[in-house]
Amino acid sequence: MFDTFLDDVAARDWDTHPDGTVRFAVVGTGGFARHLALPAIDSADYGEVTTLVTGSPDARADLATEYDATAIDYEAYRDGTRADAYDAVYVVVPNRLHLPNVAAAADHGKHVLCEKPLDATLERAERLVAACEDAGVTLMTAYRMQTDPVVRRLRAFVQGGGLGDVVKLSGDFTFPVLSGGYGPDHWRLAADLAGGGALYDVGVYPLNTARFVLDTEPTAVEGTTATSGPYSDVDERVAFTVEFPEGVFGSFSASFTGAADSTFVVHGTDGTARLEDAFVPRRDRTLRVEAGGATLTLEGAGTNEVREEFDYFAHCVLTGERPEPDGEDGLADLRVMDAVYESAASGERRSL
Amino acid sequence: MFDTFLDDVAARDWDTHPDGTVRFAVVGTGGFARHLALPAIDSADYGEVTTLVTGSPDARADLATEYDATAIDYEAYRDGTRADAYDAVYVVVPNRLHLPNVAAAADHGKHVLCEKPLDATLERAERLVAACEDAGVTLMTAYRMQTDPVVRRLRAFVQGGGLGDVVKLSGDFTFPVLSGGYGPDHWRLAADLAGGGALYDVGVYPLNTARFVLDTEPTAVEGTTATSGPYSDVDERVAFTVEFPEGVFGSFSASFTGAADSTFVVHGTDGTARLEDAFVPRRDRTLRVEAGGATLTLEGAGTNEVREEFDYFAHCVLTGERPEPDGEDGLADLRVMDAVYESAASGERRSL
Repeated sequence: MFDTFLDDVAARDWDTHPDGTVRFAVVGTGGFARHLALPAIDSADYGEVTTLVTGSPDARADLATEYDATAIDYEAYRDGTRADAYDAVYVVVPNRLHLPNVAAAADHGKHVLCEKPLDATLERAERLVAACEDAGVTLMTAYRMQTDPVVRRLRAFVQGGGLGDVVKLSGDFTFPVLSGGYGPDHWRLAADLAGGGALYDVGVYPLNTARFVLDTEPTAVEGTTATSGPYSDVDERVAFTVEFPEGVFGSFSASFTGAADSTFVVHGTDGTARLEDAFVPRRDRTLRVEAGGATLTLEGAGTNEVREEFDYFAHCVLTGERPEPDGEDGLADLRVMDAVYESAASGERRSL
Repeated sequence: MFDTFLDDVAARDWDTHPDGTVRFAVVGTGGFARHLALPAIDSADYGEVTTLVTGSPDARADLATEYDATAIDYEAYRDGTRADAYDAVYVVVPNRLHLPNVAAAADHGKHVLCEKPLDATLERAERLVAACEDAGVTLMTAYRMQTDPVVRRLRAFVQGGGLGDVVKLSGDFTFPVLSGGYGPDHWRLAADLAGGGALYDVGVYPLNTARFVLDTEPTAVEGTTATSGPYSDVDERVAFTVEFPEGVFGSFSASFTGAADSTFVVHGTDGTARLEDAFVPRRDRTLRVEAGGATLTLEGAGTNEVREEFDYFAHCVLTGERPEPDGEDGLADLRVMDAVYESAASGERRSL
């Protein structure tokens, strides 16, 4: 079982090698776009950047030159300027601004890869999903872990019974949000722009990955949050338990303070799979599987799940397939996370 | 900081090298006594076994011969037979039987090392502690992690600020209770004898270790439990969140099913300390500390925390010092765990 597991790591289990390329407008030019998304699209098999949408096209002229793209501002983008130059948009702006930018893309018949969470509130996210459905365009929620080959193989291994029955999961993601040169006015710390704090921004990683790996939906949650200092507008940290059917518990936590760290563990009756550096972008994840008396350590698989994400999305666009992390997937997490917030506020377990 | 940390690992930070030896009666001859405790006392600097208390002295004659001890039954023990042959007792019987055996020891003026949890209910445990206090004998709760040199150094490192401010903790302990040759009639699965299931038996490890490392007391808990099959009398598994002051959360879980596994992680503002094989008896724990841009991995420290536990206890008896894991420490965990059970039953967070 381990041999097959290893052999498959580098493979794209979804790639049918279609012809064509998807031309992207990247809507937003913040750190993630500049450092991770643009290089990923540039190196992708099925994607290319043609358009940059930014609040200051002049200031981003270098970026446009680097990617041989044209920079336009948000007003021009929403008006449909250059809409014939791209097939799809990647929306990577503060959460509260997802809806107008996605709706504009849908209006122009463009496919959409939208960052998570889908918007700052469930109600807005539902409108976002409806806008894409009404327009008949593909919508993918940017859950890059679902396109990480190591995580996909972990899912296949778990669902193939490699760990026996799953008993429980553990997961945490500590992302020191202010360590990246951001100040206390960063949008992630503003409730109106972000909608939620550490839970929405990073707690969603163990939650979504658990739902992905188990392929089941939570039945109840309980959680608690804390805030302090510059994080007083949103949850600085959160600890929450997600109950899945048959008494499978997920013990998860997330924080905007603390040294960067992330782990995801699946405990089964026959073994344990432990993913280190689980959720950090573009990090070589270390996967340790102990099962059936054997141990497998997979280090340095060297995958770039951000590029995989863009290629997977573009592949869906080219083939007309619905992405696994679709709009409903994004809404499902928002429902669970809002229940966690309600539990944190009321002190009561919330059934789902 | 790392250098000092490493240098100190092998040292007993509590040893004042007193003269003398404490003679033990080991009350109970189950698996933990036979495989771990008796060899540990036998190899201890400050302890020796003189007396075995067992339900079947004849059947345990080989054991008595092996340790040059005398085997007596429980009735004889409680009557004080051979009481002049030992100075202290180690009580390692089903939880519900702790109180009568500890009370007997206290009656005879013997010091007590009692397994955790102190009894099957908080009320009985309080009587157990009172019996020892009234008799003026030393009582230690057998939290062997508190005498593990690696855990003690981890505590010193954390309390010395090596990780900055602590943000949160993660911990889990999966102990497949029926994998050790025990059947479904094992006392750990009987509510009247055990008092609680996975939480009482193994969930207490991350809880007590967190309280030990942080040196603070929880302010609130929330938890959820599940049972199934042969575990229907007690919690087969539990997930619980412990809130410490200043928004420090502990995300803990424990299970009687699943592949054996245990981890304990302290997340701080300046680093992360991760203890693997954290709670398994006599296992070489691996400690990975990432802090201040450096990484330390401590493997194969090769400590035997069970022997350390008996030497630490005997040292307390010889010097008259109060053990750190005293009776109050054991009661504190029972109060927290009972609150977790109440939260699991009511679905409501419980303040402490």
